[in-house]
Amino acid sequence: MPKAMKAVIKAQPGPGLEASEVAIPSPAPDEVLVKVRAVSICGTDLHIYKWDPWAAGRVKPPLVAGHEVCGDVVERGSAVTTPEIGGFVSLESHVICNTCSYCRTGQGHICENTKLIGVDRDGGYAEYIAIPAQNAWPNPPDLPLEIAVLQENFGNAVHTAFAVDLRAKKVLVTGCGPAGLMTIAVARAIGSRAVYATDISPYRIDFAKRMGADLAMHAVDDPVLELVREATDGEGVDVLLEMSGAPAAIDQGFTLLKPSGEAALLGVTPGSFEFDWNNHVVFKAAKLHGISGRKLWQTWYQARGLIRSGAVDLSPMVTHRFKLDEFDLAFETMASGESGKVMMTP
Amino acid sequence: MPKAMKAVIKAQPGPGLEASEVAIPSPAPDEVLVKVRAVSICGTDLHIYKWDPWAAGRVKPPLVAGHEVCGDVVERGSAVTTPEIGGFVSLESHVICNTCSYCRTGQGHICENTKLIGVDRDGGYAEYIAIPAQNAWPNPPDLPLEIAVLQENFGNAVHTAFAVDLRAKKVLVTGCGPAGLMTIAVARAIGSRAVYATDISPYRIDFAKRMGADLAMHAVDDPVLELVREATDGEGVDVLLEMSGAPAAIDQGFTLLKPSGEAALLGVTPGSFEFDWNNHVVFKAAKLHGISGRKLWQTWYQARGLIRSGAVDLSPMVTHRFKLDEFDLAFETMASGESGKVMMTP
Amino acid sequence: MPKAMKAVIKAQPGPGLEASEVAIPSPAPDEVLVKVRAVSICGTDLHIYKWDPWAAGRVKPPLVAGHEVCGDVVERGSAVTTPEIGGFVSLESHVICNTCSYCRTGQGHICENTKLIGVDRDGGYAEYIAIPAQNAWPNPPDLPLEIAVLQENFGNAVHTAFAVDLRAKKVLVTGCGPAGLMTIAVARAIGSRAVYATDISPYRIDFAKRMGADLAMHAVDDPVLELVREATDGEGVDVLLEMSGAPAAIDQGFTLLKPSGEAALLGVTPGSFEFDWNNHVVFKAAKLHGISGRKLWQTWYQARGLIRSGAVDLSPMVTHRFKLDEFDLAFETMASGESGKVMMTP
Amino acid sequence: MPKAMKAVIKAQPGPGLEASEVAIPSPAPDEVLVKVRAVSICGTDLHIYKWDPWAAGRVKPPLVAGHEVCGDVVERGSAVTTPEIGGFVSLESHVICNTCSYCRTGQGHICENTKLIGVDRDGGYAEYIAIPAQNAWPNPPDLPLEIAVLQENFGNAVHTAFAVDLRAKKVLVTGCGPAGLMTIAVARAIGSRAVYATDISPYRIDFAKRMGADLAMHAVDDPVLELVREATDGEGVDVLLEMSGAPAAIDQGFTLLKPSGEAALLGVTPGSFEFDWNNHVVFKAAKLHGISGRKLWQTWYQARGLIRSGAVDLSPMVTHRFKLDEFDLAFETMASGESGKVMMTP
Repeated sequence: MPKAMKAVIKAQPGPGLEASEVAIPSPAPDEVLVKVRAVSICGTDLHIYKWDPWAAGRVKPPLVAGHEVCGDVVERGSAVTTPEIGGFVSLESHVICNTCSYCRTGQGHICENTKLIGVDRDGGYAEYIAIPAQNAWPNPPDLPLEIAVLQENFGNAVHTAFAVDLRAKKVLVTGCGPAGLMTIAVARAIGSRAVYATDISPYRIDFAKRMGADLAMHAVDDPVLELVREATDGEGVDVLLEMSGAPAAIDQGFTLLKPSGEAALLGVTPGSFEFDWNNHVVFKAAKLHGISGRKLWQTWYQARGLIRSGAVDLSPMVTHRFKLDEFDLAFETMASGESGKVMMTP
Repeated sequence: MPKAMKAVIKAQPGPGLEASEVAIPSPAPDEVLVKVRAVSICGTDLHIYKWDPWAAGRVKPPLVAGHEVCGDVVERGSAVTTPEIGGFVSLESHVICNTCSYCRTGQGHICENTKLIGVDRDGGYAEYIAIPAQNAWPNPPDLPLEIAVLQENFGNAVHTAFAVDLRAKKVLVTGCGPAGLMTIAVARAIGSRAVYATDISPYRIDFAKRMGADLAMHAVDDPVLELVREATDGEGVDVLLEMSGAPAAIDQGFTLLKPSGEAALLGVTPGSFEFDWNNHVVFKAAKLHGISGRKLWQTWYQARGLIRSGAVDLSPMVTHRFKLDEFDLAFETMASGESGKVMMTP
Repeated sequence: MPKAMKAVIKAQPGPGLEASEVAIPSPAPDEVLVKVRAVSICGTDLHIYKWDPWAAGRVKPPLVAGHEVCGDVVERGSAVTTPEIGGFVSLESHVICNTCSYCRTGQGHICENTKLIGVDRDGGYAEYIAIPAQNAWPNPPDLPLEIAVLQENFGNAVHTAFAVDLRAKKVLVTGCGPAGLMTIAVARAIGSRAVYATDISPYRIDFAKRMGADLAMHAVDDPVLELVREATDGEGVDVLLEMSGAPAAIDQGFTLLKPSGEAALLGVTPGSFEFDWNNHVVFKAAKLHGISGRKLWQTWYQARGLIRSGAVDLSPMVTHRFKLDEFDLAFETMASGESGKVMMTP
Repeated sequence: MPKAMKAVIKAQPGPGLEASEVAIPSPAPDEVLVKVRAVSICGTDLHIYKWDPWAAGRVKPPLVAGHEVCGDVVERGSAVTTPEIGGFVSLESHVICNTCSYCRTGQGHICENTKLIGVDRDGGYAEYIAIPAQNAWPNPPDLPLEIAVLQENFGNAVHTAFAVDLRAKKVLVTGCGPAGLMTIAVARAIGSRAVYATDISPYRIDFAKRMGADLAMHAVDDPVLELVREATDGEGVDVLLEMSGAPAAIDQGFTLLKPSGEAALLGVTPGSFEFDWNNHVVFKAAKLHGISGRKLWQTWYQARGLIRSGAVDLSPMVTHRFKLDEFDLAFETMASGESGKVMMTP
């Protein structure tokens, strides 16, 4: 076993990442050491790369970046009994405490002591990562890397789409970034009557159709209210799945939501904004569900079920592949808005 | 407008039905008159045909039989504003009171004053039927007769499959009569991970595979417990959809149900039977849902959504077509167990 | 039977109401005529009295005002079979259509054709009112007028408090107008661990304690965040019941809401406002329930249950009684903020 | 610290228990050592005492008996950070694995690797017990022993009563042993409209009234069907809470259950029995909830809330107190049916 490894790190406060050589971590008694086989880039990684105010306020360099990771278990801490050495695993990025009142009541996704890999502790843009054994989700050995690496992000899509009953419902997905695109596929797979989607990127609008949207529209240039009303016999949609974080999209989505409609809200907005409380929520008797991360670990079981049954096909999602060394190019591609998921391999 | 019409009636107590000529009914102020375009045969109709103890205790001849009906609205009572004259409709068979506590709380399917057409009041094995306007569900004009006539029975399947969350779940359907077969299709359409099915008719076991079952087994001749455990990594199923009413199938189904599993129960048993309360329900922390009819009218909206989105394809379900005059042959076919749904046209 | 009756009407656009003599209405076939025994004043009535922009945009004079009404059934339309002539009834103010998709799926409270008595059609500030029979809720003959007249408004409280599971939960009620005060009593009755309340009227803060609040605070002058955190071991509340419509109270309430907390929202705000979407909903994984009217008719059954079991005691709620002739004085009392409910009798 | 302690053990297969001296256990790294302050007797303990077939098949002597325990933490394993040394705790009797799929999805109460203290591993009829730290629930230091010792059993009552929405509902509790009696108190505390109860012990029927039952009946000698129908205007009950495990009581309860009623089922029957599936479940559209143990750990939080708010008063429940040495007398008292809970102190 070597002592050092290649890693892509945030070396000090400020924009950018850099290639470095760091010590291979040792797993604690309840941890496993995973040899990384693939990583992918999330919007959060872009914030860290760009060093925006959120990143500057939270991340403490030096830090190995990256939280969407899959790889092989190569070593186990003394107290670990599962998963197996040699097993192929995807990683859950939230390291939770198991002892707070949330963890003790099946709500680990809002654990009050959560640490995120690649944000609060070393991540997976590296050759190895140490992580609690419970965060290593076993995959079939032959699961394609392109799907294994997506599971953490796919979990956001599943968590959002499963927050509401979509069976035989008309659904609007606002925001067609990778999580939104996968949400469209989930919504189709679980019996939605129709899925409408909006974004402001022509590339993603087109991608949305490929992932199963009945109608994909430009949120600004297309007459979205008219198109959706026409498609729904004037009624609007039963469900809003909000993946954009754009106040204008939120307003559009709630305008189209039927009375007693439900909305699942994953998108993070730039900040507070003017919201039409009475018409969008109270008079409409709407139900809103804030969505945070993935349910630990229900969402992982659900995601696995959708993938293994073939109900959801994630194979179109990874559109670009790079070596980890090419991380600057990979981030540039991701930032362009002209990609699905961008994957890197060590 | 003629005064008399052809009808297939139970003329007096005893087995069989007979062709007759009866007066065309006049719609009451809240009713519509429907010119029948197609009817189909339900298990209940077989009980009435055979005049079993249940039928003898409930049905008061003379009575026009038949409760699975579609046709065109040709006349409306004075208080009716919808559906339109000329509209193509499928009929809900339960005539409910709208005033009891169940009806007043959105539970019309258990209305305490329910009258069933073809059982408690004249049905649709005839050229015309009068029925409350709220029981006439508008169809698109081009919906195939073979699908329109199934909607009432399809509603049983939807009601059963929608009683439990099937998303990413492993599901066992016990009983592959027409309702069971359609339940398999619904379970697939709403994101089940896998659907296993049992019956004792080779014809229906084969049919189950065509409707989407991953595994269809003979409930007696196949080693069902072993096969399902093998298919589920030894875990059993998350959900049981019980459509058979056979005590042995119920026992088999609950034996395979995982702890905290859920069961939706539509099948009517021959009577009381020995049930393993502790192991099947209490220790297992199982949840059981008795299913009666269809939710009025939520199930109709849900059924419509599944059909119009294409998520469920009912076109294989009608396997035999007869003229209403050939009702004896039609009932014989239905009783053989070697059919899907049997349709008759006036 | 006389032909004319006394009524308090909005005679033409503009502030105020006036006493008048109008024709006694005739019940339609599905209606009953009710001899009014008591009415009370709602916030909506104050808007109509003052003729604010909402009232000016919706109400079409001349109109008999008033929608919180109880009285005796004195005549029934030809199609009415219940309630009995002579029966003592309270009125549901929303006249619904029974035929739209919401009504047909147990969601009459969001019927798309709703007409409100006292707003869209003649109300109950009069000696008689005609109303659909289904809107007349039978009371025991000996129910005190002071409780019978409250049931419509009590239904708002029940609907709000029942929207969320309050069992063993810590609850914050923001806004202690009459609906808020009754909500406190309901929250106590159904097993809340603690109820905290805020308002800006010292009279109502004191009233809140009498209705069962463990802690009642001035929303501006008291250090609400500190007091509630101290009372909850720093955790905040599990549930927010928002009855005020004040953006500052909404912000305060969501700030105190725990992760995965739930909020039921009845208060109507002055308009759109800046809302901290990320921290109040998304990151917190909060669930929000917009509340409109009462569930028709579940809420009435629930309200009846709480009153008859003695779980909720509404007797302190009516604090002032007037004759209908004294309506100006009654409205002045209601507008002062120094009252519970204000009742008038013809 | 002494090395040996007094304990009441099942020394070898066969009836009875015996006083013994055994080694004080050492806590494993994730365990605490608790100095026992009080224990109480459960029905399960009676089975072990009598050495019935269930006990003979499961218990492997020698074993320290007892699973209802409270005491003080006197030592902590190396990995334990909570609860505090010196803290007063009540014990959850199910030792769960935290790693199976049930534990990982918030369903620890059906953990597939559960070990019960006093059944599968040494229990608390002793001066000391070692148990995983997560099983030691912190109490306020001044909580009376008589309440602290009940919490584990009280959790069964809370779990059962919370399985169904009881708000404004009419409830039948069949079986008034200690768990049934506490369930009556919970049902009252969370807003039931009425609670009816049955048992076959006059002592317990009387006790049921003291715990809040509106009506307490002898299941055999009283005309239960008539009495409950009369009390419910002929409608029957909305909810059945089945605590007896007696097939006759189950039949009586389901006979009285309204259409669409719900039943929570904790009572363990002597074995399989004839059950009227059609009338009790299918036609009635009933919903049944098997109840096992307590939800880990939601039920503990809920139980704490009810106790601390004063909504439930458990102080009448312990009716007899003994020294641990007097265990034979204590078991005799418990077996007589003329007691509430029986407590012993070391």
